[in-house]
Amino acid sequence: MAVQIAVCGPGECSPREERWARQVGRLLAERGAVVLCGGYGGVMAAAAAGARAAGGTVVGLLSGADRQGACPDLTVVVPTGLGQARNAVLVNSADAVIVVGGSWGTLSELAHAMRRGTPVVALGGWRVIDAAGGPVPGVRHAATPAEAVESAWPAA
Amino acid sequence: MAVQIAVCGPGECSPREERWARQVGRLLAERGAVVLCGGYGGVMAAAAAGARAAGGTVVGLLSGADRQGACPDLTVVVPTGLGQARNAVLVNSADAVIVVGGSWGTLSELAHAMRRGTPVVALGGWRVIDAAGGPVPGVRHAATPAEAVESAWPAA
Amino acid sequence: MAVQIAVCGPGECSPREERWARQVGRLLAERGAVVLCGGYGGVMAAAAAGARAAGGTVVGLLSGADRQGACPDLTVVVPTGLGQARNAVLVNSADAVIVVGGSWGTLSELAHAMRRGTPVVALGGWRVIDAAGGPVPGVRHAATPAEAVESAWPAA
Amino acid sequence: MAVQIAVCGPGECSPREERWARQVGRLLAERGAVVLCGGYGGVMAAAAAGARAAGGTVVGLLSGADRQGACPDLTVVVPTGLGQARNAVLVNSADAVIVVGGSWGTLSELAHAMRRGTPVVALGGWRVIDAAGGPVPGVRHAATPAEAVESAWPAA
Repeated sequence: MAVQIAVCGPGECSPREERWARQVGRLLAERGAVVLCGGYGGVMAAAAAGARAAGGTVVGLLSGADRQGACPDLTVVVPTGLGQARNAVLVNSADAVIVVGGSWGTLSELAHAMRRGTPVVALGGWRVIDAAGGPVPGVRHAATPAEAVESAWPAA
Repeated sequence: MAVQIAVCGPGECSPREERWARQVGRLLAERGAVVLCGGYGGVMAAAAAGARAAGGTVVGLLSGADRQGACPDLTVVVPTGLGQARNAVLVNSADAVIVVGGSWGTLSELAHAMRRGTPVVALGGWRVIDAAGGPVPGVRHAATPAEAVESAWPAA
Repeated sequence: MAVQIAVCGPGECSPREERWARQVGRLLAERGAVVLCGGYGGVMAAAAAGARAAGGTVVGLLSGADRQGACPDLTVVVPTGLGQARNAVLVNSADAVIVVGGSWGTLSELAHAMRRGTPVVALGGWRVIDAAGGPVPGVRHAATPAEAVESAWPAA
Repeated sequence: MAVQIAVCGPGECSPREERWARQVGRLLAERGAVVLCGGYGGVMAAAAAGARAAGGTVVGLLSGADRQGACPDLTVVVPTGLGQARNAVLVNSADAVIVVGGSWGTLSELAHAMRRGTPVVALGGWRVIDAAGGPVPGVRHAATPAEAVESAWPAA
């Protein structure tokens, strides 16, 4: 079975985040991964577009119960109807999670992944510090889409 | 986006149900549908095998939170971690549901689909009667896999 | 911890079903059970009203993500935001399920409960028959609310 | 209907966090709130114990599908069977969320609440900073259990 990697990020994002997400999607697809995402706009749509352009398989797990608002580049659409609980399902489906940019919804996905022990690689976005102000360890940070994909890829 | 059709049925099934499910999977894939199923054994595994053999895309939505027990012929595996609540997610993802054989889990999927207004086509399996003993209308019945696929296919 | 019993039934029901549901709710509360229901109208609202009138605790597990449409007699409201997947959660929470009347949503709850091995007692409503036309065994049938509550109550 | 407030925090916590959680639970119950929690150990168990000791109603929404591991002081137990997706359900049910201490699961609850627009009050625990190192605004911080309850309580 193919490697499955989720690309998570805000539905509204900066041009740089959109470019990053598209590149991440493309690189994942070129390497043979199934790309998973939340299936709506912003980072999700860009990751889907990048993967689709490279001939990849893209699965969008929507929070809604129908396809309304789904981005156009999905191979398979799963309208979970679960609301934000779908974030946990998305993470459960991924061998690794690449986070592009920051939002509360994105942070919930990062947190679910860390809770589960799924590798998380962040390109920009928010960071978590403990009560003493030190970084909470665990999330891998990448500077480029290529570095993010390399870091997220499961060891053979 | 491709037509998405769920094939639902028991994890333990008769040889005839297995044959039917395999043919349904194959016919759906040949016609270009993405096949969705619960991702485990019996009818689910047979539908996946039929679709995969025809070069189709098969998505298994598992009740469990990891891939344990997943059937081998899935293109994409979604370990929802939702338990039996995944049956509602599976149904939400389908343009139509083809039911092969009967079990309580299968009946919950049929009922979720009817509740939602998603077309349901049954090949064998259980039937529902009202308090007066008459059939509760709505489920379409088919005698062969070809008839089931024809009946389930969305009008253009 | 108190016995927890779910009362399931259609959001639109007959006067007799409403009367039955109210009596079931009242009898359960008098006996000390926490009453669980789907939290909307019809059988759900009637069961809640009966239990509340008897001083009981009533928990409504809504499909929606907020309290809109919730019936007035809930002690606790859980807007799951899961859509119909909440039916599985409702059943998971119950030591036994009492079904009053028939609908596809109600049938999904009955099926989830039977799948899980949770006792189900039906007052009227739909029945399930197998491919040969015989009854699928397992659901207990009651003729009165008192009989339903007696049958659903867990053995000490 | 009563105010419903969720108390979220790690299953393994420090003695100070346990003391805080117990006081939060007690103060909420004394003020008439229904206390919601994840239903297991640590902060969850302490909040339940505090609320129960004050005669309050406590609802535990478990990730598991049965009561195994549930803390003893629950009035109602909802074994959702949803895994970590239950964190979104817990948050949906709350008028406000009080977070005591930090963990990835706790952070997912904080993030789901912020995403939804539900007020979040933190007693200690982790903080979120943006890419520039500045605090991401929105979470209210409290220094004592009394301050947390006061801050979380909905305006009349």
